Parts: sequence; C-alpha cells; structure tokens
Amino acid sequence: MSAKPASWIGASVERLEDRPLVTGQGRFAGDVSFPHQLHMRIVRSAYAHGRLRAIDTAQARALRGVVAIWTAADIADLSPIDFREGPNEKLAPFRQPVLARDMVRYAGEPVAAVFATDPYVAEDAADLVEVDIEELDAVTDASLPVSEFAAGLTTEPTICRQGYGDIADAFKQAATVVELDLSVGRHSGVPLETRGAIGRYDAARDVLELHGAAKVPHKNRESLARMLGRSTAGIHLYEGHVGGGFGIRGEIYPEDILVLVAAMRLGRPVKWLEDRREHMIAANHSRQQRHRIRAAVDAEGRLIGIDDDFFHDQGGYIRTHGTRIADTACGILPGPYRLPHFRVNGHFRLTNKTPAATYRAPGRYETNFVRERLMDAIARELGLSRIEVRRRNLISPDEMPYERPLVALGDEVVLDSGDYAGLLDKALDRCGWDELERKVRARREAGEYVGLGLAMYVEKSGLGPTDGARVNVHTSGEVEVITGGASVGQGFETVIAQVCADTLGVDYRRVRVVHGRTDRIEYGIGAHATRATVMTANATAVAAAKVRDKALDMAAQLLQADAAQLTIADGNVMRRDGAGATIGLGELAHHLRPVSPTRGERDPGLAAEGWFTTDHMTYPYGVQIAQVALDAGTGAVRIEKMLIAFDVGRAINPMLVRGQLVGGFVQGLGGALFEEFQYDERGQPLSVTFADYLMPTAHEVPEVDILLAEDAPSTCNPLGIKGAGEGGVAAVGAVIASAVDDALGGKGLITQIPITPQAVKAMIDAQRN
Amino acid sequence: MSAKPASWIGASVERLEDRPLVTGQGRFAGDVSFPHQLHMRIVRSAYAHGRLRAIDTAQARALRGVVAIWTAADIADLSPIDFREGPNEKLAPFRQPVLARDMVRYAGEPVAAVFATDPYVAEDAADLVEVDIEELDAVTDASLPVSEFAAGLTTEPTICRQGYGDIADAFKQAATVVELDLSVGRHSGVPLETRGAIGRYDAARDVLELHGAAKVPHKNRESLARMLGRSTAGIHLYEGHVGGGFGIRGEIYPEDILVLVAAMRLGRPVKWLEDRREHMIAANHSRQQRHRIRAAVDAEGRLIGIDDDFFHDQGGYIRTHGTRIADTACGILPGPYRLPHFRVNGHFRLTNKTPAATYRAPGRYETNFVRERLMDAIARELGLSRIEVRRRNLISPDEMPYERPLVALGDEVVLDSGDYAGLLDKALDRCGWDELERKVRARREAGEYVGLGLAMYVEKSGLGPTDGARVNVHTSGEVEVITGGASVGQGFETVIAQVCADTLGVDYRRVRVVHGRTDRIEYGIGAHATRATVMTANATAVAAAKVRDKALDMAAQLLQADAAQLTIADGNVMRRDGAGATIGLGELAHHLRPVSPTRGERDPGLAAEGWFTTDHMTYPYGVQIAQVALDAGTGAVRIEKMLIAFDVGRAINPMLVRGQLVGGFVQGLGGALFEEFQYDERGQPLSVTFADYLMPTAHEVPEVDILLAEDAPSTCNPLGIKGAGEGGVAAVGAVIASAVDDALGGKGLITQIPITPQAVKAMIDAQRN
Repeated sequence: MSAKPASWIGASVERLEDRPLVTGQGRFAGDVSFPHQLHMRIVRSAYAHGRLRAIDTAQARALRGVVAIWTAADIADLSPIDFREGPNEKLAPFRQPVLARDMVRYAGEPVAAVFATDPYVAEDAADLVEVDIEELDAVTDASLPVSEFAAGLTTEPTICRQGYGDIADAFKQAATVVELDLSVGRHSGVPLETRGAIGRYDAARDVLELHGAAKVPHKNRESLARMLGRSTAGIHLYEGHVGGGFGIRGEIYPEDILVLVAAMRLGRPVKWLEDRREHMIAANHSRQQRHRIRAAVDAEGRLIGIDDDFFHDQGGYIRTHGTRIADTACGILPGPYRLPHFRVNGHFRLTNKTPAATYRAPGRYETNFVRERLMDAIARELGLSRIEVRRRNLISPDEMPYERPLVALGDEVVLDSGDYAGLLDKALDRCGWDELERKVRARREAGEYVGLGLAMYVEKSGLGPTDGARVNVHTSGEVEVITGGASVGQGFETVIAQVCADTLGVDYRRVRVVHGRTDRIEYGIGAHATRATVMTANATAVAAAKVRDKALDMAAQLLQADAAQLTIADGNVMRRDGAGATIGLGELAHHLRPVSPTRGERDPGLAAEGWFTTDHMTYPYGVQIAQVALDAGTGAVRIEKMLIAFDVGRAINPMLVRGQLVGGFVQGLGGALFEEFQYDERGQPLSVTFADYLMPTAHEVPEVDILLAEDAPSTCNPLGIKGAGEGGVAAVGAVIASAVDDALGGKGLITQIPITPQAVKAMIDAQRN
Repeated sequence: MSAKPASWIGASVERLEDRPLVTGQGRFAGDVSFPHQLHMRIVRSAYAHGRLRAIDTAQARALRGVVAIWTAADIADLSPIDFREGPNEKLAPFRQPVLARDMVRYAGEPVAAVFATDPYVAEDAADLVEVDIEELDAVTDASLPVSEFAAGLTTEPTICRQGYGDIADAFKQAATVVELDLSVGRHSGVPLETRGAIGRYDAARDVLELHGAAKVPHKNRESLARMLGRSTAGIHLYEGHVGGGFGIRGEIYPEDILVLVAAMRLGRPVKWLEDRREHMIAANHSRQQRHRIRAAVDAEGRLIGIDDDFFHDQGGYIRTHGTRIADTACGILPGPYRLPHFRVNGHFRLTNKTPAATYRAPGRYETNFVRERLMDAIARELGLSRIEVRRRNLISPDEMPYERPLVALGDEVVLDSGDYAGLLDKALDRCGWDELERKVRARREAGEYVGLGLAMYVEKSGLGPTDGARVNVHTSGEVEVITGGASVGQGFETVIAQVCADTLGVDYRRVRVVHGRTDRIEYGIGAHATRATVMTANATAVAAAKVRDKALDMAAQLLQADAAQLTIADGNVMRRDGAGATIGLGELAHHLRPVSPTRGERDPGLAAEGWFTTDHMTYPYGVQIAQVALDAGTGAVRIEKMLIAFDVGRAINPMLVRGQLVGGFVQGLGGALFEEFQYDERGQPLSVTFADYLMPTAHEVPEVDILLAEDAPSTCNPLGIKGAGEGGVAAVGAVIASAVDDALGGKGLITQIPITPQAVKAMIDAQRN
C-alpha cells in the first residue's frame, strides 16, 4: 500500500485478514483439533420419504475404534432444532429432529451418528450401520395442488401473505394484464470449505465450546443454550477462518448439536467435517420457487397492481430461519417501482428434498428475476422499450423516504434514499446502451443470437435494531475493536479497522478487529443479511468517538492544553495548530491504567463501548446490464459484456465493494445458467458431485464492469453507508434471463432459470424450424 | 448445604470450585495439550558459579525426535527477565537471562533448552548436551563482609533502607539495649503441582497464548508484551486449576519465555512441565535472612527504638519482584507496637543459590520471627512476662488509623483499624493461658521439656489502588462475574460469588466467577499479596449494585411499580411488601437484550462494570499461641496446642478463612521446624528430594484452634473486609521459636529457624551436662 490516504473511509486499502491466509496459516474448521478427540460420521437416509423401521448397529459397534453409535433413541431428550428467532408454535411440528425419528423426509437426513477414534474408522462403521426404511411416495414438486400430495404428509404448513390496496379493483382498472409463470431452480451456496464442527466440553470450567462456528455465533449461542438447557454463560462459540459463508454456513444443523452433546456425554472432544457429497445433500439448499404472477398495467405501462401466488419449495423440514425467505420475498418483490396495489401469497411448502434456507440475497434473487421478467413482458406487451417501461415506474428521489406497507425481515419497509433513475442513466451511459443496441441489432440481423439484458433492483441491508462494539487502546498503541460481528471472507476486519482508524486518528493497520468469539463480547449480530458493515461499523464509530474524547481529555491534562485545541493524527495527540509536544495513544493508555496516578477520577482504560441503534433497514440499489451471445450449435450462453451499477451510499473500501459485487455476480451466474440440485421422481438427489452440479469457473466468468455510485448516502446511519454483500448476486438471474430472452428475439421465452444449454438449443432449434 | 442463610456474606457455604476437583475433572497445566505440540526440557548448570565455556549439542541433536536445541546464542535478541513493576535501571544488570550467557550463577540455572516431539526424548537429549563450565568459588553466605566475596561478583546490588526518628538518640535514651543475631532458613512454597507452561501461537489470529498461567495473568501479560515486543492485544494468558500457588507459582520464569518464543519460532505448541527435582532448584526460593537487630528500651520495657541490619540472601539473580521482599520486611518489621525511632538497612545480596522471591507472607514471616524474638528477649532482660511487655507496647484502638512513616509494597503504612490488646485478651482467655502456664511449669519441674510460645503480628492485605469486575446476568438467570482475579485454591470463586449474591439478591450457586483469562477482561490484579478478596470483592459489589439498580429500574417499568418499592430475593424482583407479581432476573435480562423493544433507551444487557479504588492497604492482625513438648532423646518438637486468633474485619466465608489460617499454619510449621534448602560450600544444593527437604505431614500437624475475630472491620472498603491468605503462616516461625525457647528454659537459645531436632537435642544435652 502506498501513503496514508486523507481518510481511511473510502480508501481501497489492502485487506488486514489476508496475511495468515496467503501465508498458509489460515485456521479453518479442519485445522482445529483437540487431543483425544473423537471423529463423528453421520449415517444418512438413502430414501427421500419413508418409515424408519429399524437401525441395526451391531456390526458397526464391533469395529475396533468405534466408541459409540447414536440413533434417535439415544438422544430422545433433545428437542428438534429450534428457530433462530425463538419458539414458533405453529411451525414447531415441522422442525428437523437431530436424528430422524420414525420417519425420514429427505435423502441425506441424519439417522445415526458414529463416534470413533479415527475418521476413517467412523466412516467404515457408518457403512456397516443397517438402516431399514419402508419407502413412501415422495413429493418433489411444491407447486402441485395440495390435493395431489401423498396422504399423511402436511405439505403447506403456512402461507406467507402480504399486500395492500385493493387488488381486485386494480385489475378492474387495468388497460393490460400481463401474466407469467416463472421458476427459479434449486441451488445454493457451495463454499470451498465444507461445514465443520468441533465440540469440546471443559468440565473444569463447565464450558461447552463449539469450534468452527460462523455467521451468527452469538445468536447460535442463544439457540444452543435453549436447546441444550444450559445458560449462555456456559456455552462459547469460536469462529476460525471461514472458507465461504453465503448464508448457508453457520446456521445450526443436526451435526452441530451432535458434536456438542457427544462432547459432554462421551467426555471427549468430537470433530466432524462434512465431505463434499454430504454438503450437496445436507447443507441448506435454497432459491427454489415458482411464481404465478400477474400485473395490472395502465395504457402507458404504469403498474397498477401485482398479484402473485408463489410456491416455495422448502424441502423436508423447516430449519432455523422459519419462513423468513418467503416473507422477505413478499416484502421485497415490488423493487424500485411505484406499485399502488399488491397482493402476494407465498405457499410455504414441504417436499421430500434437502431443507432450504438462506443463500446470499435470499428472496431477492428469486423476486428480482420474477419482477424484472414481468417488466420486460409489460414492455413487450405495450411495445415500449425495456428502459422506458422502467423509467415510467421508478420511484423518484423526491418521494424518499418511501414507506411501503410491507415487511421484510420483520422490518417495515421504508426505502431511505435513492435516485433510481439517476443510476439507470449512469449505467446506460457507462455501457453506451444505445450504441450496444445498434450493434446487437446489426449482429442479430446477421444471424447471430445476441442480446442485451437489463435489470433494476433494490437491495436491503443494515437490519437493526442494535449492535455494539468495544474499542480498546492498548499501551502499545495498538487498538482492539471487539465486536460480535463475524468474518466470512467479506473483509470485515478491514472495513471495521478503517472506520475505527478514521474516527480515532490512527493507521488502520494498528487496529485489530476481534470477531466471532462469544467470550470476548456479550452480544453480536454476526455476519448475515448484509448487516455487519452497517451496524457494526456504526457501533465502532460510536465507541471510537468516545475513546477519542477520553484520549483528548487525558492528553489535555498532560499537555496542559484545552481538549478542543487538540486532534489526533497517526496515533498521536497534538495541537491542531501543530505547536508543542505530542503524546501517543499508547502512552495515554498507559496513563489510564488502573494503577496510574495520572488518570485521576477517570475510569481505567482507554476504552469504551458504543452502541448503534437504527429504526429501519437501509436500501442500496442497482442496475445490471448484460450482453450475451448464444451458440446456436450447443446452446451455450457466452456473456460478452457485464455491468453492475450499484449505489452503496458510501463505500468504506471501494476495492472490497467491487470484490463483493463481482464475487456475487459469479454466484448469481451459477444460478442463472449452471447450478441446479435436481431430483428424480422418488426424491433421489441427482446432483451430488461437481460433475452433476455445475459451477461457473474462471472460463465462464466475463470481465465485470463495476460502476460504484455513492449518490444516495443512507439516512439511517451517521456514516451514510449501505451494505454491499448481496448486491452483486441479487439481480443476476434477472439480467441474464433478460439478455438471453433478447437474444432469442425478446419473446418472453425465458421463464425459468437456470437457463441450460439444452433449453437454449431447443428454443433456437424451434425458431429455426 | 442446608437452607439459604440470611446473608451470603458471613456464611460458611460450600466451595463452588470443588465439583470438578473432586470428580477428577480438574485441569492443571499437565492436562493442557495441543495437537503437534513439542516438549521442552531444560539443560541446567551443574555448577553454582562458573564461566560458561562451551555447549556441545551435536550428540543431542542427532537424537530422533529432537526438533531444536537452543542456547543463549539462539535467543540473543531476548532481554533478561523483566521486573513486574517495570524497568529498573539500577537493578537491571542483575536480572536473569532466559538462558545463561557467559556465566552461570546457581546450580540449576538454565543453559540450554531442548525441544522434541516427546518428553522422554527431550529428557534423553538434554542429558546428551555437553556443557563445559569453568567452576569458580561460590558465595553461599549473604551475611559475610562484602570484602570476603569472590572478586568480580557484585554481591550487594542495593541496600533497602527505611526508618524515622533519631536512632542514635534513641539508644542514648535507652535504659536497656537488647541485641540479637537471628536467622531464618531458606525455604519456599512446594506446591503439589509443579510448574508448567504451554506456549501456543495462533498465527491465524496473531495471538500468542500461555496456558498454565497463575497468580497474576494480567500483570504477566504486560511484562511478556514488553519483553517480547508484542502488544498486549496479541498475548493471552490462561489459568487452569492451580495446584498450589503460595506466591512462587505464576511469576515469570525462564521456562515461560522459552515456551512462548519457541511456539512462535518453531511454529508448534510447546509444553513444559517441571519435575520435582527441578522445582527444588529452579522455582523461587525464599525467606533466607539474617538480622543483626538491637532494641533500645526504657525501664518499663517500652520500645524507644529498633536498629536492624539484615542480610537478604537473594540467590543468583534478581527476579520479577526486584527488592520487594526486603522492602516489605523494612516496612512491616515494627508490627503492632508503638516504635518512636526506627532504622533498618536491608542488605540485598546476591549469592550462588537459586534466586529468591515471594513465598506466602514474604517479609513478614521473617520479621515477625525477628521482632517477636526481640520482644521475648526484652521481657527476659527486664524480668517481665512476655504478655506484659507486649501489652505495654501495643498500639491502642484510639490511636487508629495509625500512620507510620514507612512504606510496604510501595504503599505508605497506615494501620486502618485494630484492637490488638483486645485480641490478645481474647486469645489468652480462649486458651486459658494462666492455667496453661501453671501446668507447663509443673511439668517442667517434673523434668519435661515443655513450653508456651506467643507471637503477635500485623498482617497486610488489600493492596490498591484499583480493581474492576464485570457482572452480567444471563437470560437463564445465571450471573457471571468476570474478574481479573486468579484462583490458586483459596476459594476465590466462592467468596466472590457470595459477595455478588448478597448484593444482587441471588443464590450464590447461580453465580459463575470467571478469572485468570486475560481475554475476558482487560485488567486484573490476580491473586497475590492477599489482595484478591479485598479488592475484587469490593469491585464486584460495586458492579453488582449497578446491575441491581438496572434490574430494579427495568422491573419497575414492567411491574408498573416504583423502583424504590422493589427488592430482589432469590433472583426475583418483587415488591418489598410482597404484594403483586414477581419477575426473574433472567427475564429482565431478556428484556434488556439489544433486540428487545422493552429496554427503551437503556444500554443493552443486564450487566455493569464496577471499579473499587482504595488509598491504602488494610491491616488484619493476629495472636498465635503454641504449646510444645521436646523429646529429650531425639530433639523432636511436638506441638501440643496451637491457637491462632486472627481478626479479618469481616469474614465472607468463615470456613474458608479458617481453612486459610490452618493451611497457612502448616506451611509456617515447615519453615519453623523442617524445611530448609541447604547448600554445601561449593553452592551445590543438598535438598533436592523430599528425603532431604522435609515437609510437615499430617503426623506433624496438631489440631489448630482458630479464634476468628471480626472486631475491627476495615475502614478502607465498604465491605469492611481484610484478607486472610497469609495470616496463618506469618507468625508461625515466631510462635514456635518462642515456645521451644520456653521449653528450653526461656533463655533465648533459639535464634534461628528451622529448629532442627539436632539443634534441640544439642541444647538439651548442653543443659544436662
């Protein structure tokens, strides 16, 4: 890195977290071991739906090195896995038991756990466990009429409903009604590091430890305490490096409970590492929804109302999130457009597949695809350009803050700030849309299948209500920021250090950011829902400002100056006019030690806790533009140009924001073109290796142009920041679908993602015939 | 335990810390291991004094499993071991290097460190290291004239001086001058658990960990940070169970530095466990002093002045305490007596023995012996009873607080409260002194060697200035008290829990006390100098009171009551008049979670930090009375009766105070009769096994009667408490010497401890001849 920037906030400084990673000293779950640990292996159901008749563990038990084998009977006292937000009576019957009892509901469901002195022995023993299951018919399509489901299986525990206005009246007023049937495929986050959990019970301190934690250590501590009947004081979670989180890693799964309970009951640490095949069938799936959506539009293409019935394919159980994704989908669907009337019913349905939950931009990836397909269809129907139909519907800056009588993530939707049309103009200008359109038209006329796609969307971030942080200056001058945040690779340490550095007047490399350890701070929000930067950074700024005040007050005494005359630069307090002596923050910390006579009546420590509270989420927004070319011979989609324009209010580290957006785009591309967990009619998973579940590689990923805008700082927090963690991924399904559709003549042929080469080829072939 | 007592403070409740210990789940240093750890073995000097010519490690290195062998050259960048209180230029040259450079100064000094994959390989390899030392004359008597010491060895780095008044004039005024030459033998704490240290470097977080810490984890963190050039933010110490502290365990020794540096440089955890022989020559020795003391007394036996020159045998280096014991000896010597003039020179001298430092009641065990021998001599000289001469000199309650122009532990001596004569009366009454005297006289006339001894003393405790604690109520209702205290077996968890329980209104068994972990709280005083109970308990009370206020405030809102009408009992807030609903502390904690809407503007958490600050130490005091019978045939001393009367101001847990006093007595008995580290004239240690270094066993320990007084609560802290950690041991040398001397006819024959059977037999034989 070059010289110190004028402000650490806004500077694309190098990541603090990279040193151990690039020197091979990362500490992932697999790197955590304890002496005398046992290794756990899960025996999983081979059937998607069935009655569990018997489990014979005799042969497996006989294997040398096997210490215990548990089935549901051995942990009959454990309740099913709880919802993160606390008990929910209505949904409680659909929670997943730690080990299957009586029934199995998806292929891959844990039915037994083997504990052995060696991971290979554990795996061999698991193979010897004989599970007798009476197979039943499987439900694999969430959108079938309820009457067609197999008897005895409750398939629709609830319907998530939202809406406002008078939807019937809206359709009466409509000049045009556009109706679509759209599907998003089942896919999920596939991190490089599979899950891992190491349970350890320290009887000497009566502390139960979970190593390999991620995402939401503090919240999981609360849930685990509830489930295990322990006090939170006796449970600690420790996050190491996390090789990809994406929303799926770090939730509470059966394996987490098992290693903890086994650590206590077997009296030895217990380690579990997920293998790749397990990951494909055991970790949360996501995304799969089918929307039957209708729009009522006036003659000028203005939305009057949207009416949506969607079917959310939840899989076999309701996991820790409850119905949150379907709820969010309802609340976020209208996007950046004015919408007078709205009604949505999310049919939250169980099927015999791996349970689903959050994956980066949950509920938005799906609904952005759906809404933007609808906008394209309206344009087509009315003969308007896709740009024009959007322009006519965009909420304008002078309507901000824009209250929408909807709820997302339990928060009333109030769009805080944004110039959607302004960003659209910038994006069109950046890519030279008109010129692109001309060229595309020319090539298409020359026989090429080439098209332009566009998608607009509103992201959400910074879910409140509160986060806290503690800033502590050590006598060395090093600053420690203790947070309840979590690092899943997003650069959390760096951005928090930058915020602290700016507020406090130190070099950001002198700031050590602690996260993911429940014994360092009592509360924390972790890293989910694009909250961490907004909430934790603002809390850090509050704490750092208090520390700054204390430093200036102490320094004023020592330098015999007025605190108001002083400032801090590069870790040294000095007079604003540059005159006289300076004093380092470390030295001031020394003066504030408990034993220091100079500290006077001040509380010991150059440290402070700061809390930040917000009423509502803050809403960044974006425009994505793609140009694709289809290979008529293979159906392959090649992305020729990709632009993401995104307004984050204020970027703490533009380089990291760009990284987030590009990385998110690549994941979004997977769902748009490649990734899908497929099942046969018996509910057997067909995508359990990377040969079947295709992920984008460097070959498939185009150069992505990022237009990073800071035109609409958040009005919800003093730093003006909005999160960028999910902004890259959220509209990729939408924009790629739009572009491929355009390449195919703009006829609305693309109604589902992923868009496979087979489908593209079939459509091209159909057009040619 | 039976029903809940009216107050937890003052109740002899069971120890919270015993469950893991009695169920075999203690976690001592030996129980701490990490995967891939290396084992360290120290190669030690076989000579007491010499020039280090060469170290040949070739043969040792060739041993399979040896990873590294370090000599001073390998760690040339490391400074010698620092003083706990920070740099001291004058004493710096006498600090111990981590590994000997050029010279060795005591037998047992580390000269090389072997690191191997197995502890046995490490030990074998250490035996193969060839150390070539040119032996020099050894200094083994600290009281020799400086001129007689070997050339080139600085033997008196400093003289610790204190005093006031005009000592020359005092002796001019004297009716009588009493002069003694008294010696205390070299002995020390010999805990059941030898030392142990496990260093581990977590490169992923850049945190260096020391496991097996004890006594003063936070202070050692500061010292280690200074020595290793790291920030305190990057070093954490972890205390497990400690099998005996006694002041010697938990200081920074060469081995602690070595495991830490090796963990970083070799990239693997490094474990070291001390064996018993090592413990006898490597861990701090203590106590050895020779006093040439004179008292100027008036005709009625009143002290006019004391003039003392003492020789403190420090051993080969000055360790972490610097000259603190000699300083304390100077400041504490006058004890409970009025003393108009005083002069003391502590000759702080180096010898070629194991370095000395603190051992339970450092500077007091020695000076109580010396002063009380002096008082007995004055009585004898003037023909007064030992009781009477003391009575005439005791400071009276109406002179309290009694300022003495002396300094102990860096603190100006102000005796805060005490009724010394009152406690003496109680003690005499308790044991029926007059009756005992009659019986002893009768038995002596019948030819038995039986005697009564008495000693009075003032202890010190509660060294300030400040300690803090954090009290946090979890939603389970469990209360966590996070302290920077340390547990060395003294019952710290229990007493802190009792204080918290009383203040907060919960059962003490619902309180979890955290200690000895530098990552849980930023500052801490540990457990030394009988500070922990006074300082940490008062800080806990302050924090708990804040939590109580917050709980009442929150409850007042929920119960729609006035906070002043509410109280807390058994963890529930209720109206003082018993009417209406109650609400549990756990539930209130739930209402105060960050996400709780009911908490309003209150900071999240039912938690608070509290600090307690004091100007001066507080001074408990005691009277010890012993009756001994000597075996004329063997010289053995049998203790027939033992009374310890001790005023602690206010006992938090009388059972634990009694335990401290009895345990301390047993250790004091070791120094009085049995324990001594002996050396030959070449400085070779002669006491390296329990066959040579005799410790009292159950056989030697009499029943000890404890008279626990609470007549003089401390005026230095709101709880009125004084510490009891060293009150049992402090006067045992004094009282046993007094009793044995009495049994030998009260002629002042006993001038040194330990009083060996050989010496007793020789004195009896001399009397008979």
